[in-house]
Amino acid sequence: MTVTQTDNVPPADSRERVKQFMQDLQDEICNGLEKLDGKETFREDSWSRPEGGGGRSRVLQEGNVLEQGGVNFSEVWGEKLPPSILQQRPEAAGHGFYATGTSMVLHPRNPFVPTVHLNYRYFEAGPVWWFGGGIDLTPYYPFAEDAVNFHRTLKQTCDSHHEEYYPVFKRWCDEYFYLKHRGEMRGVGGLFLDYQDGRGALYRGPHQEGPAAIYSDKIGEIPPRSWEDLFAFIKDCGQTFLPAYLPIAEKRHPTQYGERERNFQLYRRGRYVEFNLVYDRGTIFGLQTNGRTESILMSLPPLVRWEYGYQPEPNTPEAKLYETFLKPQDWVNWQPS
Amino acid sequence: MTVTQTDNVPPADSRERVKQFMQDLQDEICNGLEKLDGKETFREDSWSRPEGGGGRSRVLQEGNVLEQGGVNFSEVWGEKLPPSILQQRPEAAGHGFYATGTSMVLHPRNPFVPTVHLNYRYFEAGPVWWFGGGIDLTPYYPFAEDAVNFHRTLKQTCDSHHEEYYPVFKRWCDEYFYLKHRGEMRGVGGLFLDYQDGRGALYRGPHQEGPAAIYSDKIGEIPPRSWEDLFAFIKDCGQTFLPAYLPIAEKRHPTQYGERERNFQLYRRGRYVEFNLVYDRGTIFGLQTNGRTESILMSLPPLVRWEYGYQPEPNTPEAKLYETFLKPQDWVNWQPS
Repeated sequence: MTVTQTDNVPPADSRERVKQFMQDLQDEICNGLEKLDGKETFREDSWSRPEGGGGRSRVLQEGNVLEQGGVNFSEVWGEKLPPSILQQRPEAAGHGFYATGTSMVLHPRNPFVPTVHLNYRYFEAGPVWWFGGGIDLTPYYPFAEDAVNFHRTLKQTCDSHHEEYYPVFKRWCDEYFYLKHRGEMRGVGGLFLDYQDGRGALYRGPHQEGPAAIYSDKIGEIPPRSWEDLFAFIKDCGQTFLPAYLPIAEKRHPTQYGERERNFQLYRRGRYVEFNLVYDRGTIFGLQTNGRTESILMSLPPLVRWEYGYQPEPNTPEAKLYETFLKPQDWVNWQPS
Repeated sequence: MTVTQTDNVPPADSRERVKQFMQDLQDEICNGLEKLDGKETFREDSWSRPEGGGGRSRVLQEGNVLEQGGVNFSEVWGEKLPPSILQQRPEAAGHGFYATGTSMVLHPRNPFVPTVHLNYRYFEAGPVWWFGGGIDLTPYYPFAEDAVNFHRTLKQTCDSHHEEYYPVFKRWCDEYFYLKHRGEMRGVGGLFLDYQDGRGALYRGPHQEGPAAIYSDKIGEIPPRSWEDLFAFIKDCGQTFLPAYLPIAEKRHPTQYGERERNFQLYRRGRYVEFNLVYDRGTIFGLQTNGRTESILMSLPPLVRWEYGYQPEPNTPEAKLYETFLKPQDWVNWQPS
């Protein structure tokens, strides 16, 4: 059965409902993070965009757990989508667009606490609409136990909506958060999805390079889903952030560290910068649509190092990160070797 | 008169001669910088590229004047140029290519010493060939006198080859080293040129945004130039680096500075990262052609800060940088106000 998107139109109040959810998600996350941090709180800047729309940017700086955390809500509209998106959705050409979303990047102070990113977004443009986004975890001094718990929590949320979601969106995440020029994944992954419009095909590629090689050729396909199904799934994903991340941050934050660990953390943060500025769709979309630069680049770490020719010493915790954690793994079924 | 490029073919030993010059330039610059630094020397990594060619990467770290300096020579060839270049030179489609060049970025320790970048490069691909590159200066705590001297030295070199070179390449530099998402130039500019093949037209745009607005509509045009003319010009440009930069570094290095100046330097270095990863042609070409990542990203600073929402206080030296030095100026004829 083929369902075309016109059989599956959003409800009349779709924009209002998604926007309200995205704002609530921002509030919920900020509240949870302030409790985690215990020292600093978020300060908010509201902004509007000359071409249409605006947002609320919130940042927590120099906290106890968080060296910097940024949580943004935005709702923007305009006359046309940038070429990079129209290539993927040619039906949107010649139409105005509406987009709303929440995005977050946390840079913890302690190198034993992983950096984490979340973004969920919704687009409407003429005859088409879609949800996208995801979540991924980037440890510096990693623990397999944390990667396992993070992925199991995400899988539980996915499975309650469709059994194909977790395997497909987990794989997509591994392929998306991949630094081709380094031959490394950004971290231990999580979920990534884009252009989810209920038409049934979940993910068609790239499949040609990078981590894809470890996966089978099977491409996830599920029956068509309604707008309501997808919105319910995205809501659940957003609400899974706090239970997936807080236990890890709480457990690792008390770990002692010294200059060696701090230096390695600052060095690895450079990869975050490289990914976001060279590859990240959200960053590029923001810069291409005259988004608010300070809000878009809030994802960049407060302090970063680059070091020419760095390589970890063999048999060190730093080497273990590269050997095991920056390669795709089946975390849900992970067996300590 | 229209001269087609086939009237103006490179000599039989063009690649060998340009390559030799690029290597000599690397040697000359490294020698000059070691004398300037007085403490550390360059260490060299030679590398080869599976698809063809290789290079010598040299880095000086933790020096007296230079916190980090990278000077690269490379010579690469392959079956096809990346799409970004073929768009500009469609005649090269279906042909193999040869490229050689020298590039350099210096990140001084003292915030009163400007960062500087140089790159000169030569391409051959089927029926076409061209020279490109440039030099630009990025001060943190700027002195008009330094910008004036830097530009006058460059102009002198340009004028000895053609009177249109300096005004056109200076303007092109202002337009190229422009961070659109910040509305800022990278620094006080210098020279930039690309696709110089002797066919007479120097620069056709962008002219539509950014600093271009201050310039007249006149587009620089010069009579056709031979391969030998252009090579001689590029050689002179390369050899102008030491006399243009060393006096500035020597003069400013003894200046006292504290935490405030260091913090501002680290913050402004973030703009260097943003430019190189989002806009720079050389970086993108390198990453697209499977270049040696460590050599390409040697341009990134050893330590960098990002700070959400930073703005300089009015009437401070930091504010002066933004107000005067990150906007296009006629430095050669600069009058203190």
